[in-house]
Amino acid sequence: MEKIKFGIIGLGRLGIKHAENIAFRTPGAELTAVCALEEDVIEKVKKEWGVKYGYTSYDDMIQNKELDAIFICSPSAHHCEQISKALDAGYHVFSEKPLGVSLEECRLAEKAVEKHPDKVFMLGFMRRFDPSYMYAKQKIKEGAIGKPILFRGYSVDPVSAIEGAIRFAAHSGGQYLDMAVHDIDLARWFLESEAKTCYAIGGCYAFEEFAQYEDGDNCSALMQFKNDTMAFFLAGRTAAHGYNVETEIIGTKGTLRIAGIPQKNHVEILDQHGVRRECSQNFLERFEQAYVNELHAFVDCIRNGTKPDVSVYDGTKFNYYCLCSNRIFPQ
Amino acid sequence: MEKIKFGIIGLGRLGIKHAENIAFRTPGAELTAVCALEEDVIEKVKKEWGVKYGYTSYDDMIQNKELDAIFICSPSAHHCEQISKALDAGYHVFSEKPLGVSLEECRLAEKAVEKHPDKVFMLGFMRRFDPSYMYAKQKIKEGAIGKPILFRGYSVDPVSAIEGAIRFAAHSGGQYLDMAVHDIDLARWFLESEAKTCYAIGGCYAFEEFAQYEDGDNCSALMQFKNDTMAFFLAGRTAAHGYNVETEIIGTKGTLRIAGIPQKNHVEILDQHGVRRECSQNFLERFEQAYVNELHAFVDCIRNGTKPDVSVYDGTKFNYYCLCSNRIFPQ
Amino acid sequence: MEKIKFGIIGLGRLGIKHAENIAFRTPGAELTAVCALEEDVIEKVKKEWGVKYGYTSYDDMIQNKELDAIFICSPSAHHCEQISKALDAGYHVFSEKPLGVSLEECRLAEKAVEKHPDKVFMLGFMRRFDPSYMYAKQKIKEGAIGKPILFRGYSVDPVSAIEGAIRFAAHSGGQYLDMAVHDIDLARWFLESEAKTCYAIGGCYAFEEFAQYEDGDNCSALMQFKNDTMAFFLAGRTAAHGYNVETEIIGTKGTLRIAGIPQKNHVEILDQHGVRRECSQNFLERFEQAYVNELHAFVDCIRNGTKPDVSVYDGTKFNYYCLCSNRIFPQ
Amino acid sequence: MEKIKFGIIGLGRLGIKHAENIAFRTPGAELTAVCALEEDVIEKVKKEWGVKYGYTSYDDMIQNKELDAIFICSPSAHHCEQISKALDAGYHVFSEKPLGVSLEECRLAEKAVEKHPDKVFMLGFMRRFDPSYMYAKQKIKEGAIGKPILFRGYSVDPVSAIEGAIRFAAHSGGQYLDMAVHDIDLARWFLESEAKTCYAIGGCYAFEEFAQYEDGDNCSALMQFKNDTMAFFLAGRTAAHGYNVETEIIGTKGTLRIAGIPQKNHVEILDQHGVRRECSQNFLERFEQAYVNELHAFVDCIRNGTKPDVSVYDGTKFNYYCLCSNRIFPQ
Repeated sequence: MEKIKFGIIGLGRLGIKHAENIAFRTPGAELTAVCALEEDVIEKVKKEWGVKYGYTSYDDMIQNKELDAIFICSPSAHHCEQISKALDAGYHVFSEKPLGVSLEECRLAEKAVEKHPDKVFMLGFMRRFDPSYMYAKQKIKEGAIGKPILFRGYSVDPVSAIEGAIRFAAHSGGQYLDMAVHDIDLARWFLESEAKTCYAIGGCYAFEEFAQYEDGDNCSALMQFKNDTMAFFLAGRTAAHGYNVETEIIGTKGTLRIAGIPQKNHVEILDQHGVRRECSQNFLERFEQAYVNELHAFVDCIRNGTKPDVSVYDGTKFNYYCLCSNRIFPQ
Repeated sequence: MEKIKFGIIGLGRLGIKHAENIAFRTPGAELTAVCALEEDVIEKVKKEWGVKYGYTSYDDMIQNKELDAIFICSPSAHHCEQISKALDAGYHVFSEKPLGVSLEECRLAEKAVEKHPDKVFMLGFMRRFDPSYMYAKQKIKEGAIGKPILFRGYSVDPVSAIEGAIRFAAHSGGQYLDMAVHDIDLARWFLESEAKTCYAIGGCYAFEEFAQYEDGDNCSALMQFKNDTMAFFLAGRTAAHGYNVETEIIGTKGTLRIAGIPQKNHVEILDQHGVRRECSQNFLERFEQAYVNELHAFVDCIRNGTKPDVSVYDGTKFNYYCLCSNRIFPQ
Repeated sequence: MEKIKFGIIGLGRLGIKHAENIAFRTPGAELTAVCALEEDVIEKVKKEWGVKYGYTSYDDMIQNKELDAIFICSPSAHHCEQISKALDAGYHVFSEKPLGVSLEECRLAEKAVEKHPDKVFMLGFMRRFDPSYMYAKQKIKEGAIGKPILFRGYSVDPVSAIEGAIRFAAHSGGQYLDMAVHDIDLARWFLESEAKTCYAIGGCYAFEEFAQYEDGDNCSALMQFKNDTMAFFLAGRTAAHGYNVETEIIGTKGTLRIAGIPQKNHVEILDQHGVRRECSQNFLERFEQAYVNELHAFVDCIRNGTKPDVSVYDGTKFNYYCLCSNRIFPQ
Repeated sequence: MEKIKFGIIGLGRLGIKHAENIAFRTPGAELTAVCALEEDVIEKVKKEWGVKYGYTSYDDMIQNKELDAIFICSPSAHHCEQISKALDAGYHVFSEKPLGVSLEECRLAEKAVEKHPDKVFMLGFMRRFDPSYMYAKQKIKEGAIGKPILFRGYSVDPVSAIEGAIRFAAHSGGQYLDMAVHDIDLARWFLESEAKTCYAIGGCYAFEEFAQYEDGDNCSALMQFKNDTMAFFLAGRTAAHGYNVETEIIGTKGTLRIAGIPQKNHVEILDQHGVRRECSQNFLERFEQAYVNELHAFVDCIRNGTKPDVSVYDGTKFNYYCLCSNRIFPQ
């Protein structure tokens, strides 16, 4: 069977990981082209991994007819335009989240996807592909916890990453766009409904630097969904113990918790600090397998002509939610 | 040293436990009188525990000049009146929470306490006397987690107790008055501030029976306090695993969790269900020691002429909070 | 009902705790007399707790005919003689473990007990009265883990107590007599059989000071019991995290673990060290309730004319086991 | 860079996993040939994975000069002979454990490895490549627990696999050869010494069927090593909760535990059974990543001309240990 030939745009910290996963961890996939601004990175990847083509121009890459699929890991502001171009050029497209930075461009991306129903489009809501989240979803489908009542999602970055967060604060979309994007998607996925009301609060508790951007270092929100279920979110930047992504789904007959302790591995330490677990320190460590699994799912969809679980509309929804702090959502 | 002689009103499930603690687990205390509607219970206690006096009338009991202190464990609607009467009659008073069922009567109780500054008045916010909560409070004082950011309090009753809850629903003050009373007190205690805004939601997810009383089986609330800290509450009645009282205080430098797993004891079971902990099934099991400790503190205050950590105003505050769903608190 | 009047000998760290439990935590018991070498301690207890009699001579105390029961918490070398004297003088007797320091004197204690079948004699194997061990025993009785296969018992003191252990080493009976006494009793209790073979090893891994007494700072033993079950013991003095008493019973259908994490309370800490539990630091902290429960059981036996679960023969057995390292036990 | 071309012998349950790892999860490796008795399996793999060559004869495969390395996953009795043949034919060799079934043939394998110092030979002690064991080893190197005192290794198969174990019992080398092989290797690796004495016991506690082969369903052993450290092993077949591979290294300054709870993933379930973790059910689930990592290490050694951490002598040692129950090891 022919391999699916990928071209990727964006070779930053996450992009290089995706490239590596395409090249070495996805049976049936081949990393055929890379596109980035940094020529030295392109050369390095071509040489060390045997990648055939390198580009500094996205428009050039999407004229390469050897390719089957385009993987987009560029800055968020370019996603929608690059998605449309790639689909129009005849490729399957995988884009990192978020779909876009405004509702308007998300709508344009939706149109592009609708125009090419024969092409697979998938958005990188990778947590849905983490083995633990998949297991939790399956448990719920099987009725293990009855009907969901409340979703609780924490996404708190380690304080060790605070310098970068402060530097990036001016250009970020705020705590919500950066940190809660996955939790909002997970809430919709687990609760199987959309929010009808939202109340959001927060502040600068440790780092006043965020105040000038009308942002905070920790914020939280409580939503009620149309099916009456509830969702509580905490997005923060000051976890001392590590990368704290913790999820709870409380149901009428049971509760599931995912990574209540974000343990790094199976090692428990007993020493002068007590009995303890060291924690994952970043998303690449915690979600290594999820990034691999989402690629497998994308390739499977291309092979089998099926649609991914994550649609373009899931991407738009997030931007919609971000506009709706402390208000009633328009129906 | 002379023992403090107690008279207690109310010998229900919790009252009988308090009576037992006074009689047998509080050095320096003596259970001298009991008052209840059920004459057989009075006789039983007098005979088996050697209690000197039994009453069916509260007014009679508080004329017994042998007594030093009155312990009130009657229905909530009687608390305020009984507190005033006992203080006026010259006794130290310990009352179960809540202080009262309306803000007005709470104000009257405040006045009664203010009128007798030489008497000790204490309200039964017993969680503050649980060894784990005391330990957490001490840790925070020592700076272990920096400044608090968010308080999360769950109080979920086991679903095994649902029948009683439904029967009692017509006469209850709702989820909040029943279940969140301790969490609201804990939030105020840990965050050291008062709420300025509140947003509360909820519903009937498993038991429609609560709807007729405009109540739900699970409800949650998100508050912001005057010092900008946040508090999230969940009060529910449908926990499958047991009596789930779980508290988290997230700070700028660390986080404390109390009873994230409400484990019954130190036993871990490995069997066909996995590796598991069985859980406490009710408040008497979980907070056995807290009920003892609060009595010790009360007796110490009487002995030493000091004031309890829990004041009459803490009692009023709770009723105030209950009136304030989805609104901005008046300053 | 008349209270059981206790006289206690020995007011060291543990003795004073027992005295306090008799005085204030045991319904139906009264601390009537204390006996110790230190006159100031006697005076303090008489005054502060209202104890009626104080003695510096054991022989004097056991002539006090007001007393019903004698509690022995003196140095181990005196236990057997004091037990015999108290029984002969007509008292019920509770003795701290071990029963004695030689098999011969244990046999004499057995004879004394046999001579007074109307008197209650109980030995302080208090772990059997710890709520978690009691729960585990009950679970096994109910068949929760099938038939036991292997017992694993760790008793490791915190390294913070090492100085005292070294000072005491010359006079101690070694790791086994000091540390494994409870584990050997628990193994016999859970496995319901006696050892047939034993293999024991150990050494000085951190503190060479023990070598001069032919002792070690950590030692372990593997035994096979007559019913073919197995038992593994670790006794040590170098735990960094606290007082590590951990027990496991592996059965044909399940496994129970008691205090795999010797957690101090319900507080979990998330900070720069990871997610952690602080631990109990000594036996008084870990087994506070067990010391109370064993007293309750003793008083119940006196009241009801029943025999304690722990017999004088359980005491002798331990000394027997101590003689039998690396050998086949005589049948 | 040219890919390392692998031929594999043995396509059973584990062999097919290794083949898949070579084909799809090892950058720089290619699955070029497979050898098995089952022609349909060969055809399936050739077709579905695009494998170039298929053989039913090992001797034929090792004449294929396209190959660089042979991976041996055949029955244990063939390992040594196949290792020698492959090395003599000029290939790098990776063999599943155990090295062989007798000390004599292990010695022959050692000779073959010594004869070809330019070839990489590696034995599949894969636990050394599990991320958690690697992390523990690194921690110990850094001094996190001081000097090791005791190693405890449990390897207990789920009782759900008992039928196969009974069927296989006649041909197995017993509990030790089957179950303790990894633990003995780990003990040697962590304690950095060799055993000097051993005491082993066991029995049939749940399944009498093993008795006829002079084997048991659970057995344990206690060893002392030449550097005085201790090692306790439990090998069993009756775990109700899953595949229980648990390791503990107790040191003078701390303790490490690996997989004390053999949790399947990050999901915690709160339901009528309590608060619980479901467990891994077999070695492929628990050690998926270790099997990948050992292959990466093997390929790295070939690329870089280095020697693996696991030598042929580590393989022989295990067989030596198996001969030495209840005896003093010859020096």
